[in-house]
Amino acid sequence: MDRPVEPGHFSACEARLDKHIAGRCSVDFPVAVVLPAGGSGERTGLLTPKQFCTFLNRPLISYTIQTFERVPWIQSIVVVVAKESLDLMMDIIHRFHHRNVQVVHGGSTRHRSIFNGVRALSEGEGGTARVKPKVVIIHDAVRPFVEEDFLLKITMAAKEQGAAGAIRPLVSTVIATTLEGYLDHSLERTMYRASEMPQGFIYDVIYQAYQRCSESDFEFGTECLHLALQYCGTNAKLIEGPPTLWKVTYKRDLAAAESIVKETLSQSACVVTGGSAQATELANALQKSMSTLDMEVDVISDLMGDDAKSLSKEWNFIRVSVNSSCFSEVGKMLSALEEADRALLHPVVIIWVYLIGSEDGSSASEPMGGEPAAMMELATGAKLGNILVYGIQLHHSKEATLWGRSVEKVAQMSCALIRDRSPALTGQLLQA
Amino acid sequence: MDRPVEPGHFSACEARLDKHIAGRCSVDFPVAVVLPAGGSGERTGLLTPKQFCTFLNRPLISYTIQTFERVPWIQSIVVVVAKESLDLMMDIIHRFHHRNVQVVHGGSTRHRSIFNGVRALSEGEGGTARVKPKVVIIHDAVRPFVEEDFLLKITMAAKEQGAAGAIRPLVSTVIATTLEGYLDHSLERTMYRASEMPQGFIYDVIYQAYQRCSESDFEFGTECLHLALQYCGTNAKLIEGPPTLWKVTYKRDLAAAESIVKETLSQSACVVTGGSAQATELANALQKSMSTLDMEVDVISDLMGDDAKSLSKEWNFIRVSVNSSCFSEVGKMLSALEEADRALLHPVVIIWVYLIGSEDGSSASEPMGGEPAAMMELATGAKLGNILVYGIQLHHSKEATLWGRSVEKVAQMSCALIRDRSPALTGQLLQA
Repeated sequence: MDRPVEPGHFSACEARLDKHIAGRCSVDFPVAVVLPAGGSGERTGLLTPKQFCTFLNRPLISYTIQTFERVPWIQSIVVVVAKESLDLMMDIIHRFHHRNVQVVHGGSTRHRSIFNGVRALSEGEGGTARVKPKVVIIHDAVRPFVEEDFLLKITMAAKEQGAAGAIRPLVSTVIATTLEGYLDHSLERTMYRASEMPQGFIYDVIYQAYQRCSESDFEFGTECLHLALQYCGTNAKLIEGPPTLWKVTYKRDLAAAESIVKETLSQSACVVTGGSAQATELANALQKSMSTLDMEVDVISDLMGDDAKSLSKEWNFIRVSVNSSCFSEVGKMLSALEEADRALLHPVVIIWVYLIGSEDGSSASEPMGGEPAAMMELATGAKLGNILVYGIQLHHSKEATLWGRSVEKVAQMSCALIRDRSPALTGQLLQA
Repeated sequence: MDRPVEPGHFSACEARLDKHIAGRCSVDFPVAVVLPAGGSGERTGLLTPKQFCTFLNRPLISYTIQTFERVPWIQSIVVVVAKESLDLMMDIIHRFHHRNVQVVHGGSTRHRSIFNGVRALSEGEGGTARVKPKVVIIHDAVRPFVEEDFLLKITMAAKEQGAAGAIRPLVSTVIATTLEGYLDHSLERTMYRASEMPQGFIYDVIYQAYQRCSESDFEFGTECLHLALQYCGTNAKLIEGPPTLWKVTYKRDLAAAESIVKETLSQSACVVTGGSAQATELANALQKSMSTLDMEVDVISDLMGDDAKSLSKEWNFIRVSVNSSCFSEVGKMLSALEEADRALLHPVVIIWVYLIGSEDGSSASEPMGGEPAAMMELATGAKLGNILVYGIQLHHSKEATLWGRSVEKVAQMSCALIRDRSPALTGQLLQA
């Protein structure tokens, strides 16, 4: 199956495509990823471990897996989970069609879990040998927003140096405390960094480090780079990463992650006119109005033919109908999206904009009949497939100010519906 | 003016009222707060410094000021801002009716700004003397969620020890780097803490520390506790704070802060029935249904009389009307809320639930006339006053399953409208 490219925070990647292609070519060795996901998530204050917390109908860990799946030079992904989460993890992999993902049991500590994952990369089922990767990337399941170009940097540095890790400036001053709970001293902030993920290692380096390290390291240690230095003499290259590397730790971080994904999904929309002059005029006005609300709008006449590419890259569609309460246009769009499995990873929004009254005023106040009920029925079915359908009705006016205000209102509501993606409001026919 | 009590994350405080009263009594000395707010916010990736970024129609710094205003034993608040933000800050103070807030010019570094704020507490206008506080709390303008009981802990420890500060466990391993960008060593995570805000000082301690410290401290230092230790020999007591102390640093933190405030505002609602039996029945059904969606609902017949307290403590109102499309009930509610200035600090939601068709089926399908237009007009006016009005229409059914499904739908939509607080959707008459 072809997977849609993630838009938005990945569009920056697209703009750097040339660099990427160069990068891709230079990764001519096998690379694998280990994602420790055995944490209990006690710091979020939630019952569910944070990697399994869901937003926009998908668990956090699936977003992270998707991030690595999008990278063409990464061959395989090992997810390490606690025994009790195994079924849940298998279900997530199945549900969101993740490929090349192997699930491994975690150990009692972070290092034991990572070692299990690393080992699985060289051992097949039942302990048989398997072609091991040259470089292994270790990343947290709860850092969903790592970008390909940063993974490339870590991977290349790891290949050259044996080990590499992401760092970030310290946000707070770090202080040493006395046993009695008083200030002992504060650290010179410029000399220290926060060690983050991802980290990369030549496979043999991290494997040997784990084979050689002590029980105490396994029990209390937290830093893989430290093990590589202490047990293999490998001095890790440190690379400053972007703030998006942050770790989803608290409940508020889930809200932040959701808002990042929503923003990513809400940067553009595709308006389909069906080709009529009046619909095109409205679509062009909407395009102008929505661009002032920071939403980029493409106007096309049909989702088929040359414009079919919108189907595979866009998360938001607006269908303009003029004097026709027939839902077949929206229904066709829905079928096309369902057929392309477009809403597998993210909810897709369809807004049906229904313009009443033609320019010559011949049917200026066509009454609504069964539309609200039909609309609701259509939307209820679509929601089951992760497609959110809303309607907006507006009346044509020859009076320029009134008309401008109506268009402005449609634009505002469309942007709000796209950004909020509220499942409870699907099927509503709103008034502009 | 009486200010409404903030609900939600403060309700935990209310539950600890006894402890608080004890606490309040023990603060029998003057306490003041200095809020450095001169940062440029370059890390958020936004043009506006983060303390002035707005969510739910209010800048972040106003939330922080409000947090301190709610504490009865804090006498005065000094906000230190950059010269170019002075007008903006005065406007915020005026717009949100903040009291006892003095605005002071910042210096070129964090320490210089804080010292300006500290100095202002003992100097009146034009350098005249002023009764200085016993304890001064220093807090960041970008940490809006500090709770009263934690402020009390810091204040009492500062009074006893001379200095006290909030700490948090380190989220990441801290590492020392070599000049060439390689790992030097990693710190033993258990021995170190992140130094956070608030911090508290006996006034003379922090004042003298700043008078005695060097130009280099002023220029490059970041830690007030360090100055108190070095220049006054005052050893700060360190107290572990809750995760809500976190600092709004990146754009994603603004989304997290907004989600915390929204959640706080969306924990309960008040359903007003007007007293009719049928409305009361619907209200009770809604109460049951919304409680399964984690929303606590109070059913009352009128906002006046004994139930008037709902007006001053609730952020969400649902008005149930039966077979009456008259908006006077919603209008009256709106006037009462406007008169009480209830939407000054947070947007208030009113949902008008309009039940069509009586139990005996006498007017089962009363057609809608001018309601949508009247509803929109009412809502447009209300929005200017930060009150968000939405409508939901449902038809009575004698068929229990259908009826149950309609009520369930009203409950779901009400919860979604309350949680999303979308300004673009006010005035809409939705269908359940």
